Amino acid sequence: MPNITLLTDFGTRDGFIGAVKGVIQELYPGVGIDDIAHDLPRGDVAAGSRALGRYWKLWPVGTVHLAVVDPGVGSDRRPLVVEADRRLLVSPDNGILTAILSSAERWSAFECTNRDLQRVEPSRTFHGRDIFAPAAAYLARGVHAARFGPEVTDPVLLATSEPEISPDLLRGEVVSTDRFGNLITNLPWSAVPTEAEVDLDGTRIPLGSSYSDVPPMRPVALGNSDGCLEVAARDGSAEDLLGATVGTPIRVRRT
Amino acid sequence: MPNITLLTDFGTRDGFIGAVKGVIQELYPGVGIDDIAHDLPRGDVAAGSRALGRYWKLWPVGTVHLAVVDPGVGSDRRPLVVEADRRLLVSPDNGILTAILSSAERWSAFECTNRDLQRVEPSRTFHGRDIFAPAAAYLARGVHAARFGPEVTDPVLLATSEPEISPDLLRGEVVSTDRFGNLITNLPWSAVPTEAEVDLDGTRIPLGSSYSDVPPMRPVALGNSDGCLEVAARDGSAEDLLGATVGTPIRVRRT
Amino acid sequence: MPNITLLTDFGTRDGFIGAVKGVIQELYPGVGIDDIAHDLPRGDVAAGSRALGRYWKLWPVGTVHLAVVDPGVGSDRRPLVVEADRRLLVSPDNGILTAILSSAERWSAFECTNRDLQRVEPSRTFHGRDIFAPAAAYLARGVHAARFGPEVTDPVLLATSEPEISPDLLRGEVVSTDRFGNLITNLPWSAVPTEAEVDLDGTRIPLGSSYSDVPPMRPVALGNSDGCLEVAARDGSAEDLLGATVGTPIRVRRT
Repeated sequence: MPNITLLTDFGTRDGFIGAVKGVIQELYPGVGIDDIAHDLPRGDVAAGSRALGRYWKLWPVGTVHLAVVDPGVGSDRRPLVVEADRRLLVSPDNGILTAILSSAERWSAFECTNRDLQRVEPSRTFHGRDIFAPAAAYLARGVHAARFGPEVTDPVLLATSEPEISPDLLRGEVVSTDRFGNLITNLPWSAVPTEAEVDLDGTRIPLGSSYSDVPPMRPVALGNSDGCLEVAARDGSAEDLLGATVGTPIRVRRT
Repeated sequence: MPNITLLTDFGTRDGFIGAVKGVIQELYPGVGIDDIAHDLPRGDVAAGSRALGRYWKLWPVGTVHLAVVDPGVGSDRRPLVVEADRRLLVSPDNGILTAILSSAERWSAFECTNRDLQRVEPSRTFHGRDIFAPAAAYLARGVHAARFGPEVTDPVLLATSEPEISPDLLRGEVVSTDRFGNLITNLPWSAVPTEAEVDLDGTRIPLGSSYSDVPPMRPVALGNSDGCLEVAARDGSAEDLLGATVGTPIRVRRT
Repeated sequence: MPNITLLTDFGTRDGFIGAVKGVIQELYPGVGIDDIAHDLPRGDVAAGSRALGRYWKLWPVGTVHLAVVDPGVGSDRRPLVVEADRRLLVSPDNGILTAILSSAERWSAFECTNRDLQRVEPSRTFHGRDIFAPAAAYLARGVHAARFGPEVTDPVLLATSEPEISPDLLRGEVVSTDRFGNLITNLPWSAVPTEAEVDLDGTRIPLGSSYSDVPPMRPVALGNSDGCLEVAARDGSAEDLLGATVGTPIRVRRT
């Protein structure tokens, strides 16, 4: 029996997530439901995409990942069911799958229009309960993605900032921060020369290989667990320490 | 095997919820435990009731819902076990079941006094661990609600504000807000005329059917996923935009 | 099949916990994973130890408790696998197990060095995913703790403040606070005389046996659910009411 994972911006205190889980359990009693997050910033589709990108492929083949950050609920944005590298995805078509679709080896997407696979009379304000939860349950039960509706070949993708990469010079930027205040850039660690000078918006950052390579509260640039160049501060927040955030430019020069 | 859901104001960082789950797993190893929320506002019984009302009946018959917001722990408030429309409930008798008991077709309630179904020597400060967790585990294992103690026919119910409803005029108020800043009123959407003027404390709000019926950051009045009239702001918080909150009056007049 | 519990300071919104759970499910599909907390204060090893101490032994024999608050990730701090009173523990060797190791009847600890029981090429910034998650999965599958690496006889223990206890006078301090603003002291309730005067940094606190023994917003000293003397405020926060916090001295004198 595959598991279903849940990523939303619903919060928990209003009981919305209780409704989503209840609908799933009603349609597939006993299925394992694993919470990823319900505290994504409200409406922050890009944050959803980044989080998904960090875990979706670590789960077993057959896992159903539900990801609902849905400021356009009730509009004409499409609800999607996607199969990517043998994992199943359920989400609104608003770019939240960007990290997955741009890294998957193969994927196929379908618009979730089949009324037989939704709750009766879906509301126009809570598709998480009425469309996405049933879709996740049916997918976990083995209903094929193509049964949900017509194929979609042009899912919405978020614009991503591409770094400039040459053997001697890399130019990129901070693309996200995490709970620890680490600054994650769009520079692939594999492109960073062994001997290099790292400049974050005018501040020189020493290269290292772990947080403990520098004294407490000092910054370090290293390859992070996703294979990107990251600027961190030992036992502290690089974001606070350096006054940097999403969009701050970073440059790496071979020395 | 039925699942057990958990709704509390315990937070998670102190480990209280780890104790509740551990007691349940010790008494019923492998039972599925689904978190709903542990971040309810401290002591906010009404918030617990609203959240419960949103999900309890969507779960399969036999599900055990534990709901513990318990400012009166250790006093003479009664611990309850309730069967309502074939779901089982475990909670203090302080009104947290109001939304359930006022909407269930049939229910029966019992005071949880049977010491054989509690932890040995329950504390007077943590009934979540010592009384409610064991009750949830035993109910999930099939112990009948009536085995827990004497019947209770007068459970505590929270006062609810009743709207005035006539065919041409509805008067009500905002009864809760959610994470998105939506303003939920006590007016049933089914009573709202198709052509009507909605007035929220002096501000005219257009009627719509989904958040996307208005431009960004503009308010809209619509029927929400629970069947109530709700005032929302597209891509924003109606609460912030309109300076409204619980208790703000709303009037709907047929036009 | 034993369950795996998770206690971290990872937060949820970045997807780190999704990665940890995915690795576990990949190695042991269908295993029950129970969240305890992911919102521990960043890097607060002592908070992790206190939370763990509150629940670890309530779970069934065989349960695997993963506890990762890991400011030293990538340094030479050791990753540990521990068996204590027939529960299994996975954590960095930084003192997070202090409450467990100082209360367990018997324990044995091992350094987690066996590369066959880790992800291939572990990162130096995310041992939660690459070392601790696989260890938890393998332990749950029945791999013996001693298989993970060499025995550790000197795990790191946090310094704890010891109270002074005599039959007529107890001197201690507040050692933690919880979400409700309760002040938990290091004085064992069993040592508190039935008739006694409790003084919290100059303020006299009445003795009681439950929160409801005093009027709303009044303080009370009682034995808490962990067997410690606690100062609480009915329907309020003793921390706010009394301006006390961790380190505030408390004295109990027999009368």
